[in-house]
Amino acid sequence: MSREAAFIAALRGLARHPAARGLLDDAAVLDGLVLTHDMIAEGVHFLPDDPAGDVAWKLVAVNLSDLAAKGAAPAGVLLGYALAADSRWETDFLAGLDAVLAAYDVPLLGGDTVSLPAGAPRTLGLTAIGRTEGPAPSRTGARPGDALYVTGTIGDAGAGLAMAQGLIAADPVLLAAYRRPTPRLADGRALAPVVHAMMDVSDGLLLDAARMAEASGVAIAIELEAVPLSDGYRALNGDGREARLSAATAGDDYQLLFAAPAAAALPVPATRIGAVTAGDGLSIRHHGEAVAPPARLGYLHG
Amino acid sequence: MSREAAFIAALRGLARHPAARGLLDDAAVLDGLVLTHDMIAEGVHFLPDDPAGDVAWKLVAVNLSDLAAKGAAPAGVLLGYALAADSRWETDFLAGLDAVLAAYDVPLLGGDTVSLPAGAPRTLGLTAIGRTEGPAPSRTGARPGDALYVTGTIGDAGAGLAMAQGLIAADPVLLAAYRRPTPRLADGRALAPVVHAMMDVSDGLLLDAARMAEASGVAIAIELEAVPLSDGYRALNGDGREARLSAATAGDDYQLLFAAPAAAALPVPATRIGAVTAGDGLSIRHHGEAVAPPARLGYLHG
Repeated sequence: MSREAAFIAALRGLARHPAARGLLDDAAVLDGLVLTHDMIAEGVHFLPDDPAGDVAWKLVAVNLSDLAAKGAAPAGVLLGYALAADSRWETDFLAGLDAVLAAYDVPLLGGDTVSLPAGAPRTLGLTAIGRTEGPAPSRTGARPGDALYVTGTIGDAGAGLAMAQGLIAADPVLLAAYRRPTPRLADGRALAPVVHAMMDVSDGLLLDAARMAEASGVAIAIELEAVPLSDGYRALNGDGREARLSAATAGDDYQLLFAAPAAAALPVPATRIGAVTAGDGLSIRHHGEAVAPPARLGYLHG
Repeated sequence: MSREAAFIAALRGLARHPAARGLLDDAAVLDGLVLTHDMIAEGVHFLPDDPAGDVAWKLVAVNLSDLAAKGAAPAGVLLGYALAADSRWETDFLAGLDAVLAAYDVPLLGGDTVSLPAGAPRTLGLTAIGRTEGPAPSRTGARPGDALYVTGTIGDAGAGLAMAQGLIAADPVLLAAYRRPTPRLADGRALAPVVHAMMDVSDGLLLDAARMAEASGVAIAIELEAVPLSDGYRALNGDGREARLSAATAGDDYQLLFAAPAAAALPVPATRIGAVTAGDGLSIRHHGEAVAPPARLGYLHG
């Protein structure tokens, strides 16, 4: 077990309140409010030369994505900002923050600003607060007989990361998928009354599906050929087995992954990519042929 | 203007929502919930050799103190934790976290754990959520004719910091005031219906009083001889003018500073230390004699 996993396991022992949902979910639910907090560090979650405005956008968007997975509408954010030594970076950060808050009509409600010792990497925290009208889906509710769905396309942000790292030529659409992801807020609100379990795809489709299976106490089977790919992704990588495995393990998609009754009519477009059955664990097939799960199912920080 | 002040001023320009209260307050108020987020960094807000359990205690206690100033009862916390390279530190931190959450009956609801690059200072964030039953006092409501009060005693944590730094011999009570402060939660709830303005004393009594005066658009006059000192503080520093100025500028007290009608009956013990009048700015007297405000009214990080 990694040190990060060991620390989280110890924290779970302290989180005995029902609203904490055993820290298994990406968000807590309290008095009809959904609360989520993410922290990002330079050199770990963003690159030192990523544009500061994009870092601000992504910090807010990934937290709003957690709200989307709970069917919540954003009500506000609190920012924890550690100042480092580059004023230009901060000016650009503030412009990106203003843009993303305006794009999703989310108020900045408060937070804290601190100064770091010289040379320390930037560390930023964001708390997002959302309101739900109905029950907030968790990742623990998938049931045998459910179908597994995902919104949008998978793998675009992973290709965009390779572009941001200068490994391949940049495509603006894929780069934007990595740097300025779109939280699926309207989809999440529409889906919340229909689904049995929902979460956002942050660390990789396969890894997040495995987490849903474990949290729900069920088995999940994924049909790799059904995983939706964008035209841009196909143009770059094709749509063979390896291209699909790469897309399904890259992470940073911020699409919604959900389990719903197989006969349910869905209120928004989504792609059926698999099935929930009794048992445990994740299995993968490609045109009916079993595929051994890759050693790395997704992106694990640290 | 410091870079931190300039950044906060720019953030205020983005915080146009009424619930943000122009970022002038320590907490936001939304749907009857009070929300506050503080961030602390090693080498800035705590010493590298401060006991980890005390760091956890203080991180939670200072956020609960912000809730106390709004008359709110704590409903939960979200923790943003950046792992560094010392497992023993983390074990001790978790023990302190468990202790402070149990002491104030506060659930850990969620958060995020990230790993930092090697050598980076620890940075920790905490979001505290509280519930209010009545209106939440702000620091903007002080009115001419109000009296100014403070709970408890002032200066103990400042003396404790000097002890933690090894500058003077340690006294367990004063050291605990620095390392394990007590948020005045019950006092805050009792006072909220009575006060016109309230805030906690975090950066120094004089600095925080000056902030209340500015936010409320009034003048505040403080009678230095009335500032309440503990027996331990007097034994160490006496209670002359310099000792009192030192206590009133040290910070980390986490007492409640409030303005209330001069004739109001207070529901909890507090000491009257001054008066609110028309005008602006802070004035200080000692036994009727004007005292020039010291250049440093309190502790400004960074």
